[in-house]
Amino acid sequence: MTDATTTRRMANAIRALAMDAVEKANSGHPGMPMGMADVATVLWTKVLKYDAADPHWIDRDRFILSAGHGSMLLYALLHLTGSKEMTIDELKRFRQVGSKTPGHPERGHTESVETTTGPLGAGISNAVGLALAERILAAEYPTLFDHRTFALCSDGDLMEGISQEAIAIAGHYRLNKLVFLWDDNSISIDGDTSLSDSVDQIARFEACGWNGVRVDGHDADAIEAALRATEGSDKPTLIACKTIIGFGAPKKAGTEKAHGSPLGAEEIEGARKALGWDYPPFEIPDDLRALWLEAGRRGAAQREAWEKRRAAVDPATLADLERRLRADLPEGFAAAMAEHKAKLFAEPKEMATRKAGEAALTVVKGQLPELISGSADLTPSNNTLTKNMTVIRPGEYGGSFMHWGIREHGMAGASNGLAIHGGLLPVDSTFLVFSDYCRPAIRLAALMKIRVVHVFTHDSIGVGEDGPTHQPVEHLAALRAIPNLNVFRPCDAIETAEAWEVAVASKTRPSILALTRQNLPQLRLKDVGENLTAKGAYELAPANGVAAVSLFASGSEVSLAMEARERLEAEGLPTRVVSVPCMDLFLDQPGAYRAEVIGTAPVKIGIEAAIRQGWDAIIGSDGGFVGMNGFGESGPYKEVYRVFGITTDAIVSLAKEKQANGA
Amino acid sequence: MTDATTTRRMANAIRALAMDAVEKANSGHPGMPMGMADVATVLWTKVLKYDAADPHWIDRDRFILSAGHGSMLLYALLHLTGSKEMTIDELKRFRQVGSKTPGHPERGHTESVETTTGPLGAGISNAVGLALAERILAAEYPTLFDHRTFALCSDGDLMEGISQEAIAIAGHYRLNKLVFLWDDNSISIDGDTSLSDSVDQIARFEACGWNGVRVDGHDADAIEAALRATEGSDKPTLIACKTIIGFGAPKKAGTEKAHGSPLGAEEIEGARKALGWDYPPFEIPDDLRALWLEAGRRGAAQREAWEKRRAAVDPATLADLERRLRADLPEGFAAAMAEHKAKLFAEPKEMATRKAGEAALTVVKGQLPELISGSADLTPSNNTLTKNMTVIRPGEYGGSFMHWGIREHGMAGASNGLAIHGGLLPVDSTFLVFSDYCRPAIRLAALMKIRVVHVFTHDSIGVGEDGPTHQPVEHLAALRAIPNLNVFRPCDAIETAEAWEVAVASKTRPSILALTRQNLPQLRLKDVGENLTAKGAYELAPANGVAAVSLFASGSEVSLAMEARERLEAEGLPTRVVSVPCMDLFLDQPGAYRAEVIGTAPVKIGIEAAIRQGWDAIIGSDGGFVGMNGFGESGPYKEVYRVFGITTDAIVSLAKEKQANGA
Repeated sequence: MTDATTTRRMANAIRALAMDAVEKANSGHPGMPMGMADVATVLWTKVLKYDAADPHWIDRDRFILSAGHGSMLLYALLHLTGSKEMTIDELKRFRQVGSKTPGHPERGHTESVETTTGPLGAGISNAVGLALAERILAAEYPTLFDHRTFALCSDGDLMEGISQEAIAIAGHYRLNKLVFLWDDNSISIDGDTSLSDSVDQIARFEACGWNGVRVDGHDADAIEAALRATEGSDKPTLIACKTIIGFGAPKKAGTEKAHGSPLGAEEIEGARKALGWDYPPFEIPDDLRALWLEAGRRGAAQREAWEKRRAAVDPATLADLERRLRADLPEGFAAAMAEHKAKLFAEPKEMATRKAGEAALTVVKGQLPELISGSADLTPSNNTLTKNMTVIRPGEYGGSFMHWGIREHGMAGASNGLAIHGGLLPVDSTFLVFSDYCRPAIRLAALMKIRVVHVFTHDSIGVGEDGPTHQPVEHLAALRAIPNLNVFRPCDAIETAEAWEVAVASKTRPSILALTRQNLPQLRLKDVGENLTAKGAYELAPANGVAAVSLFASGSEVSLAMEARERLEAEGLPTRVVSVPCMDLFLDQPGAYRAEVIGTAPVKIGIEAAIRQGWDAIIGSDGGFVGMNGFGESGPYKEVYRVFGITTDAIVSLAKEKQANGA
Repeated sequence: MTDATTTRRMANAIRALAMDAVEKANSGHPGMPMGMADVATVLWTKVLKYDAADPHWIDRDRFILSAGHGSMLLYALLHLTGSKEMTIDELKRFRQVGSKTPGHPERGHTESVETTTGPLGAGISNAVGLALAERILAAEYPTLFDHRTFALCSDGDLMEGISQEAIAIAGHYRLNKLVFLWDDNSISIDGDTSLSDSVDQIARFEACGWNGVRVDGHDADAIEAALRATEGSDKPTLIACKTIIGFGAPKKAGTEKAHGSPLGAEEIEGARKALGWDYPPFEIPDDLRALWLEAGRRGAAQREAWEKRRAAVDPATLADLERRLRADLPEGFAAAMAEHKAKLFAEPKEMATRKAGEAALTVVKGQLPELISGSADLTPSNNTLTKNMTVIRPGEYGGSFMHWGIREHGMAGASNGLAIHGGLLPVDSTFLVFSDYCRPAIRLAALMKIRVVHVFTHDSIGVGEDGPTHQPVEHLAALRAIPNLNVFRPCDAIETAEAWEVAVASKTRPSILALTRQNLPQLRLKDVGENLTAKGAYELAPANGVAAVSLFASGSEVSLAMEARERLEAEGLPTRVVSVPCMDLFLDQPGAYRAEVIGTAPVKIGIEAAIRQGWDAIIGSDGGFVGMNGFGESGPYKEVYRVFGITTDAIVSLAKEKQANGA
């Protein structure tokens, strides 16, 4: 055990590394690491369950730096506790290209960074997902999961709306092993937080079903006592740590000047004096090094005890858990999906792809116990609560479906948390138009390369009467714009099943399934023994003869293309139809495949009940397009399609016109 | 004055119209209008200051239906209080193409609809903006502005994060003339709200600086008393109205079955009996018609008194206010901007476009007293607090700059509210990457055709050390995808000034200014007496001879294109450069202009430090592109540009390669 004086010295090591690294980079945020160094030191040396020798130990406590701009706090902690990767040289390369120490912590890039943070509120929502994941896994594997989640958050984090959604979720679901350490420093970039905020945070957390306590964030004993008091709580806890931003800096501490810029040589010298830190930049005295390394191994005995418990688990159970942790699919998965598709081929049915999605999801869930579904209060519309799921409730975590409430952003952020925990596959759902609410979280999932599946139904003006507020027109393009994200828009039940297959097999890429409200015919009628959706686009129907016209369509518009093809063929224009269920995957294909699918027909027409942006990559800037130019309209959906000219007639006319014009 | 029995009968008129219209449409949401009919009746017949004879009276109280799915409540109120437009036939055409009664209320489409709602939380944030607008205008015109804002919100509204941001803003800024009427019916689409929520809403509002009271939402006297008690309050007020969703429906009332589907003939018959409503569908007895019409004129005397106060205002002041209400620019505006640009032409300087934006904004603000600027806690980075602005503070509304806090979505939603009030021009700001947080509000502004200007700085990997979480790569494409929105990315101080000119003159279209963190040279050196940015793209530098290469670029990459042009010309390849400050406006130009600007050079290359999506419309799918394929990286910005190959060298090589390949 270390006394308060030693703890302060250990904390000063963090402070020194933070100010030195930011100074060397001539860029960064020294204020938060210096302000929260005492709190972080107490947490990491006395409370957090972890073992630096095995940073991937699945039952470790999770530490989330939601205030990601304070990345040097985390990098210093990893360095001091003995991360092999986080050498002193990496600290010296803070914020340089190729370093392990980018400006904001990046999961996947740096070992032991649990999640990518920086955009405020994201870490908080991830922490809620992590705490929920622990409860779900503990219900299934009671001897293997029993850990806590600590999130360090800033004033800015608590102002963001996503945080309030996530906090309400955590309170409702009684995620009692979740602790927020709020850096209550009363400073934001613009100055004193009183410029823009007068919320009573403790009261607001309490209203959401949390405990709330205040401590002096520079009093090690008080911090430790507050942390100890959270053990065994029946609610999540907010610990408001009153701190001084840039603690130690003689002139800038307690002001916004300490937040986001190097302190400067003079101020650093003053801080060294004030903190009694007599060592040169990037040097840590041996006694503190030893104490920190010892702290880094504090969890070794706990981990060894856990290894013994693991050894006692039934081997088949353990093998399946390990498969889940690798995000592999179980042996029976391919056969189950093949059987599902065989039934569809045997008895083709007209149905909405949201219904087809439900049928496929039922099969997927039957194979993947790790699948956790949920909806932002559109369960009966999204069709994501299947018969083989039970509902997760406060205190009852053995189920597999989450009622997230009307909290799309919080849901998507928590889904990221479920994914990064390991052992679970999150599937969430809302209307496609509300993907806009989820967008910051979707982007972070793509950046983190994690597997999350979003089921976004009601994917076009096919929504009908709900009108333009609920009819996505730009969302497919806007989502396709996000790198490392697959946007599927299947045309029938077969493509929907194929999209599910690809999505769950995509270990390093999130997926979106954009599904219809309205019924669609089944267009894929023959089992070719191959997942055609996996290539993004393929020829669904060839031309009879040398193609004069190529029609490219996605989702609900593929059936219009097929009807148009019939009519054009009847009028003597050989016409082929290409289905484009995933433009992202298609553009990833080798050039030869792309050229073959795009083909050489002189007339190329894209058809999608959405804006044109992005389609030129297939049809060329001189191609024809049948789709939307602006927002939709309220009315029965078939009429709305007619109003906007997305019809078989329009496709046929455009094809003939372009053919006549020799284009 | 009407007694409680009469008030109930008046409310039943709303209930009957709502259930009949939804039934006729075979689509819609009867539950909320039936549940909140009593509350709405008390508000509209006893409290709300308005005069149906002049629905545009600028000092009317504002009524916001944040729970937009309950649109029949609003349509019924407008019909009953005597809106000329809202005839009984329009109610019979509920949710039909071309009707005045779309599924969700649409501002601009239907008179007296204050704002477009449906996406939950949006109306709440608009209401906060409206209440703020009133305070700002009252500070400037104390005899002309003194009205209140009432927002009807649902459980879902209060779960959304944007609402919590907006509520915190309203509490902090002490918007005491703002009242929320919460339809506390404990039902959401998935079922009882206890499935996903256990927030103590009153306590949460109180923690944010609000009053909170509970009433029985079916007790007219209690509702009236609660509304009266809000008069003269020093805080905004939440009135939690405990209601029964679908009130009157014998089997479905109080359940989610009343929420979003027609009740069905049998249930409607039962409801008619239960409510004592003996009239056929769409029929209102004469006595109730008369009472409602009388209620619709309740504010006539107040409006006449206001007209007198207006007549007493200094004519010049009044003329300027009327100009502001028309969103016209003042006479001196063009000259002031011309002078600003003349200075830039006289003394070209290297500067970041965020700095150039600040200089232009200073001139704009000097001309437009109605301009209200603000930032989501990035004031020193966004450069949107100019020297001729003062800060708005709680109780001090005479300023013109808002510290919104770290609440991007709430800021954008409240900005929409400032815009729809009339008399103000909102300008808000954050980093471009955080436009994702604002997206639902940006979309609604575009749909509503309102004038809002978003200044989004740090517009590319030029952000540098903050890394991929803060470097937008897909945001330009994703924003360009939104219909009726101009996304400007100016290349220098001149284009920045021009973008400001176009943005403030765009009465029916919101604008985004994407500005750099890093310095850029001034490329426009000669005053051609025309705003070239207004056409979206133009030839900045011609080729010497018949162009072999056309380079198209935006923002910070235009200077790279200019350097590349020099080198290509030197190597004998005639090269022209087209600057593309606003792709949206360019694609709106007549075909002949587009063809001329795109030109016929065999080699076309697009250059933008972002993804390619959208550029094919200019360069063709076979054009070359120098830009991003994925997420960015943390490092000094010049190095990051090099890492991703966005350099003059890369442009020159690609042009030569394509030229050699005869493309």
